[in-house]
Amino acid sequence: MEEPRLSTWERRTEWPMAALAVAFLIAYAWQVLHVSRPQWLHLGLEIVLWVIWVVFAGEYLIRLALAERKIRFIWRHLFDLLAVALPMVRQLRVLRLVTVLRVLNRQASAAFRGRVAIYVAIVTVLVSFCAALAVLDAERSNPDAGIDSFPKALWWTLTTISTVGYGDVYPTTWEGRLVAASLMIGGIALLGVITGMIASWLLERIRAADENLEGAIQQESDDLRAELRTLQAEIRELRRQLSDQEPSPPRPVS
Amino acid sequence: MEEPRLSTWERRTEWPMAALAVAFLIAYAWQVLHVSRPQWLHLGLEIVLWVIWVVFAGEYLIRLALAERKIRFIWRHLFDLLAVALPMVRQLRVLRLVTVLRVLNRQASAAFRGRVAIYVAIVTVLVSFCAALAVLDAERSNPDAGIDSFPKALWWTLTTISTVGYGDVYPTTWEGRLVAASLMIGGIALLGVITGMIASWLLERIRAADENLEGAIQQESDDLRAELRTLQAEIRELRRQLSDQEPSPPRPVS
Amino acid sequence: MEEPRLSTWERRTEWPMAALAVAFLIAYAWQVLHVSRPQWLHLGLEIVLWVIWVVFAGEYLIRLALAERKIRFIWRHLFDLLAVALPMVRQLRVLRLVTVLRVLNRQASAAFRGRVAIYVAIVTVLVSFCAALAVLDAERSNPDAGIDSFPKALWWTLTTISTVGYGDVYPTTWEGRLVAASLMIGGIALLGVITGMIASWLLERIRAADENLEGAIQQESDDLRAELRTLQAEIRELRRQLSDQEPSPPRPVS
Amino acid sequence: MEEPRLSTWERRTEWPMAALAVAFLIAYAWQVLHVSRPQWLHLGLEIVLWVIWVVFAGEYLIRLALAERKIRFIWRHLFDLLAVALPMVRQLRVLRLVTVLRVLNRQASAAFRGRVAIYVAIVTVLVSFCAALAVLDAERSNPDAGIDSFPKALWWTLTTISTVGYGDVYPTTWEGRLVAASLMIGGIALLGVITGMIASWLLERIRAADENLEGAIQQESDDLRAELRTLQAEIRELRRQLSDQEPSPPRPVS
Repeated sequence: MEEPRLSTWERRTEWPMAALAVAFLIAYAWQVLHVSRPQWLHLGLEIVLWVIWVVFAGEYLIRLALAERKIRFIWRHLFDLLAVALPMVRQLRVLRLVTVLRVLNRQASAAFRGRVAIYVAIVTVLVSFCAALAVLDAERSNPDAGIDSFPKALWWTLTTISTVGYGDVYPTTWEGRLVAASLMIGGIALLGVITGMIASWLLERIRAADENLEGAIQQESDDLRAELRTLQAEIRELRRQLSDQEPSPPRPVS
Repeated sequence: MEEPRLSTWERRTEWPMAALAVAFLIAYAWQVLHVSRPQWLHLGLEIVLWVIWVVFAGEYLIRLALAERKIRFIWRHLFDLLAVALPMVRQLRVLRLVTVLRVLNRQASAAFRGRVAIYVAIVTVLVSFCAALAVLDAERSNPDAGIDSFPKALWWTLTTISTVGYGDVYPTTWEGRLVAASLMIGGIALLGVITGMIASWLLERIRAADENLEGAIQQESDDLRAELRTLQAEIRELRRQLSDQEPSPPRPVS
Repeated sequence: MEEPRLSTWERRTEWPMAALAVAFLIAYAWQVLHVSRPQWLHLGLEIVLWVIWVVFAGEYLIRLALAERKIRFIWRHLFDLLAVALPMVRQLRVLRLVTVLRVLNRQASAAFRGRVAIYVAIVTVLVSFCAALAVLDAERSNPDAGIDSFPKALWWTLTTISTVGYGDVYPTTWEGRLVAASLMIGGIALLGVITGMIASWLLERIRAADENLEGAIQQESDDLRAELRTLQAEIRELRRQLSDQEPSPPRPVS
Repeated sequence: MEEPRLSTWERRTEWPMAALAVAFLIAYAWQVLHVSRPQWLHLGLEIVLWVIWVVFAGEYLIRLALAERKIRFIWRHLFDLLAVALPMVRQLRVLRLVTVLRVLNRQASAAFRGRVAIYVAIVTVLVSFCAALAVLDAERSNPDAGIDSFPKALWWTLTTISTVGYGDVYPTTWEGRLVAASLMIGGIALLGVITGMIASWLLERIRAADENLEGAIQQESDDLRAELRTLQAEIRELRRQLSDQEPSPPRPVS
């Protein structure tokens, strides 16, 4: 690791951050799905959401502070910065779920390394749920919107991520279209990640097979070398015999 | 096999289960397509469908009873459990075809192992036929539905699985949307299965090539070793000659 | 080749069949695009189309007669049989273009073997052109159809093969939907063919690399063997020396 | 390089051409997005666009003049010729952006070689931006068009390149459909390029692994050869000893 302080911090905050992300998701889902909630509950959930968002923003700043090469950190974690900074704009509030997904994805990709199918299934379910929540939240402001209930929002999510796109329901507000755009871009990115995973897994297998072969070559070569050593020892023995013999025959000559 | 009793049972019930699945499919298709059927036929088909479903459920319970590690069996066959339990809810009746497809798929994947193209073609035709039947069955309850005949249901299935999704016909009832969701998720899963098949077939070829190479290395190495043995034998012969010689030369000295 | 007579015939009729297919395509395009054609031209084109179709059907029968294992020929060329027999039904007339495409595809896949990109481009252009012609021909019978001109038919083809499917234009007649179904299924099949081509090309490269390696192992092993031979020769020389020496030293003893 | 003069010219004009392409893009975007611009600005931008286009056309002619094998140059750069010649027709004006994208793509593919993800992201953003500009420019002539603002044009671009295609907005003019067609074909081509990139990267890795193996074989073989040389030297030493010995023993015989 090039950044020991940063990676220590990240290892330590992994689980608390994931827990916070889940808490955020629950509070957000409650706010969106429980429409006729009393005023105090609305306020309470709003406070929870803002506090967690502030913690996320603070965590980004701490990681930035811990990083030794700050410019490179910002550049490499540009997406984290956007995910934290953009939702400050009221119209981009729905993007807060992107931060949550990034944190949960970090956990999921660590937990399911090597089991691509399970990882993809979990990420897809999670992303679909978040997208349905966010698009419902966004579209509610428009009385003419087609997406007016959670099942319809889920149906829209499904027709979108499968790229079927019947067009019977589609977002009509700009916030909803932002959610749709994130979903589409995220879907394409996910496809890229999966392709990369499969390719790297294939490569790993090929490399393992090659190492196997290299091991076989080494083994055979060592065997041959051992036989050559035996041969060498026998020849040396021969020379010793000759040397023993040598001193005696010349003598009779002298 | 870790579960000898279970796998013996599964091998024995393979064909009867597939036959039952086909019977279910025929009865279901008859019920959906033959609209103006007399009362007694309707009742008869309904009884056939329920009996077969009960047999499927019973078969799941028997497999569970035969399994030695029950928790793991439930976890590994979670999808089978869902496919058997969910259709009990009246609104999820259309999912009964998923059970049928799972049974038939088990047969097809065994019969067409290695011939990916044929397997994919058969599964796709089967899935499309079942989806068209199920969506027609579901949408019929809605007089305003676009999908009101079997050819239209087939046309809808095709525009959906090709992900074209013109939107000229689409399911409007929740049961129909459930069928659509199963079709889309099944389609994505099928794509995953195919990718996996191609990848594993590629790997198998690479592994075969590597074993070939390892064999070649082994062969060459054995050849070399044989030559070394010949050499060793010749050197030993040399030593024997010298030893024969050795006793005599010293003697003249003495 | 297992069927020498059949393959000789196929090699000989390759170019005439391709020429006939092109002639069919031109006559069909003329018929579809030149709406206000005089009666005699209409009749002439119709005769040309029927004659060529009869030639295609005759060619299939001759190939069947030449085949030694008839059942296997029918099974392996099931698609050819369908492509020749189905258009006899008036409603399936538009499928005649499938026969034409099969003949031209045979030529294209032979001519562009190894250049996947060019092959795919040419097949896609050809298929799109035929689909646009066929759908226009089919939809014309319906006065309310959205596809009422060749540019619109091309636009529809493009939105379909890219699977975008806006739904601004879509086939409304059953014949038009048959064309759409063929296009979608053909598109999926084409994707499969391309994937297979890339996979087999990849495998070929891997195999070539492995043969290279095997050659390298052989080479090195031959080198080593040559050195071992030299060694052996030197040891034999040594033994010869010893043998020369041997007879003399013992003699003084005697 | 087979064409030294041409490649020298291309290397020298790389950056000026990219700068011109960016200037064209800015002028075009200004013209499309700043609707209520004064007459003089409109005229100025139009002149800038035409001048840059003339420079592009001139650059093509210079490259053609520098090429030694002119026919092959035209054939290989057929797409460049189309991109320069087609926009002369007033109705195909929107295709001028294709020229711009070709020039920028040349730069991008050189700058991001090996970093497929970044390259794809940049190309996709660039293509989407250009497509949105072009479709807005084209659709503006139609008062009933659904695409009447830049955000809506971007939304349309996104639903198209993700192949979702809800159909809530779609081009209605032929110029707009031409843009859509270019976008779809470009998207499919981009997918092909990416697949090719991944495949060639995979192959490179396999080849590197094979070279590694070949190196290992060579290394082991060299080691064995070195040991054989030692052996040979020892046997020679033995022969020398015997030869030294040989002259003496015979003497006593004499």
